[in-house]
Amino acid sequence: MKISANGAAAPQASVSPLTRVFQPVRAQLDEVERRISAQVNAFDPAIEGYVAYAIGGSGKRLRPLLALLSGGATGSLGSEHLDLAVIVELIHLATLVHDDIMDDAERRRSQPTVNARWGNSLSVLLGDVLFAHALNLSTDFDDTRISRAIARTATEVCSGEMIQTQRRFDLQLSREEYFRIIGMKTGSLFACAAELGAVLSGAPEEVVRQLKTYGAQIGTAYQIYDDCLDIAGNEAETGKTLGTDLRKGKLTLPVLSLLGSASAFDRERAAALVLEGKLEDVAALLQSPPAQSALGAAIDTALQFIDQGEAELEALAPNEYVDALFGLGEALRELVGPLRG
Amino acid sequence: MKISANGAAAPQASVSPLTRVFQPVRAQLDEVERRISAQVNAFDPAIEGYVAYAIGGSGKRLRPLLALLSGGATGSLGSEHLDLAVIVELIHLATLVHDDIMDDAERRRSQPTVNARWGNSLSVLLGDVLFAHALNLSTDFDDTRISRAIARTATEVCSGEMIQTQRRFDLQLSREEYFRIIGMKTGSLFACAAELGAVLSGAPEEVVRQLKTYGAQIGTAYQIYDDCLDIAGNEAETGKTLGTDLRKGKLTLPVLSLLGSASAFDRERAAALVLEGKLEDVAALLQSPPAQSALGAAIDTALQFIDQGEAELEALAPNEYVDALFGLGEALRELVGPLRG
Repeated sequence: MKISANGAAAPQASVSPLTRVFQPVRAQLDEVERRISAQVNAFDPAIEGYVAYAIGGSGKRLRPLLALLSGGATGSLGSEHLDLAVIVELIHLATLVHDDIMDDAERRRSQPTVNARWGNSLSVLLGDVLFAHALNLSTDFDDTRISRAIARTATEVCSGEMIQTQRRFDLQLSREEYFRIIGMKTGSLFACAAELGAVLSGAPEEVVRQLKTYGAQIGTAYQIYDDCLDIAGNEAETGKTLGTDLRKGKLTLPVLSLLGSASAFDRERAAALVLEGKLEDVAALLQSPPAQSALGAAIDTALQFIDQGEAELEALAPNEYVDALFGLGEALRELVGPLRG
Repeated sequence: MKISANGAAAPQASVSPLTRVFQPVRAQLDEVERRISAQVNAFDPAIEGYVAYAIGGSGKRLRPLLALLSGGATGSLGSEHLDLAVIVELIHLATLVHDDIMDDAERRRSQPTVNARWGNSLSVLLGDVLFAHALNLSTDFDDTRISRAIARTATEVCSGEMIQTQRRFDLQLSREEYFRIIGMKTGSLFACAAELGAVLSGAPEEVVRQLKTYGAQIGTAYQIYDDCLDIAGNEAETGKTLGTDLRKGKLTLPVLSLLGSASAFDRERAAALVLEGKLEDVAALLQSPPAQSALGAAIDTALQFIDQGEAELEALAPNEYVDALFGLGEALRELVGPLRG
């Protein structure tokens, strides 16, 4: 054990709870990383540099993880699972490029965003080519169910983003509508990764459905976690500017809970501050007891989605990949829990 | 004959030379129009309104025309040709939505653009969903060659747009690079429409290749025509603001010809005006004899592409659709010729 200068046991270096979940597919994820990098060669030399920038970096690769674990949980992992992992990540990366335009984001993972470096016009097109290329790769599978599900999911992700954009600053947004939006924009791609991982392993229809539902629930829980991070996170750790959602009028679950709180006074005050864009005041408000209680309620909801996701795994014959799928739920619990004020 | 007030024969109402080309597939194009409108129902109710706006209007539907004529020229037109026509038009419409963001365009076909009505964020996503939906539809064909070609073409169109954006205001852009860019951004989708029209008719490989080349050449000629219009067109007729390309730094063929003109004086002066964005001066310059000569050279080049395209049709057994493909070339000649100053 390392001992710090004052003789007390040093705290363990902060290791993300996700790290151990990656263990059973570490080798495959390294190969996925290589294949993602190799996609650069599929593009015209004139635009390779932009593509390399957009797909490089150090994303968590959660969607590839899910595709691989789902494949291993239901059969034998092969090269097609790696291709699927590449495709779902490329779709995710394409949406990030377009998200950053819409959010006027300057940094992602502590690096300048594509729009910060090259402007919005080029970023619109860079997102488009990544998107088109992902769909392009999906047409290489012999099983046409893959390209169909990928294209359908891409439509759903973009539709979810669109409804979210349409409803910015709309204080009438209900919790049900919020769940529908995040289910489309985030849940659907997680669901697709898990579903198609099982399809490629030749899993029976019922099992495919269970994994798809698991993916949808875990994706939804992850989005709630991400939404809570925007309010309760640590800028240094997340590499993102806090309060971005609020500033852009995205009403996330903790904010909706606060707006829907029992006290009409709190509700009025929160609504006024959000609409007036008084961020310092909003930040102060978020430290208040009613807001902390709303954050706690959002965290409880995320935990419920994790539970519901894991319930879908009960019928699977246990193996190390199934264990890792449970581990993913557990890791998310360990991430979201500490956000409670 | 209608006689005008002063007793002279009135000029014929301006009918586009394209009109007669549409004749053999008029009924099918009406059905394509209905199917395009019906796509709205495939989207989430929350975004139907935006989709309806983007796909409505009165586009020329040249890409659907090409898909249908190519199909009829090589076999029997069926329902799958209509689906193909819908898909290539949706991809075109998606790129228009994104183009208008990049060009900060306020009007298209005399209507406010999507970005003018709802802002850039929503327009980015609207382009994305149209794009994803088109690829989605393409996965419904039993022949996987269709979805592969569509996805590959989508990547090529976006890559071409990207290179064009990257090279804005780059006075070193060569004519070869210009041809490569317009071949990717416009030629490839025309080529894809003609190619897949023939594929769906079960045409032999050699014939499919000929129609693909015809499409590429006609698409390139059409883009040169469109580029000349930006300089020599009539705002009232085109519904577009003239000089948009120049203002945005897009160096089109007539401008490249002027920049490459024999007189170093003209070249320097044109380059300086383009870079300084002095549009009135650029407009005056475009009326000058060297510029009129550069415009003439660009028009000659467009005519050459039409000739080369038509040469690909020589081996086809004549029928009314083959005639209409020749007619499309002739109509383009009638459109581009009068732009000569």
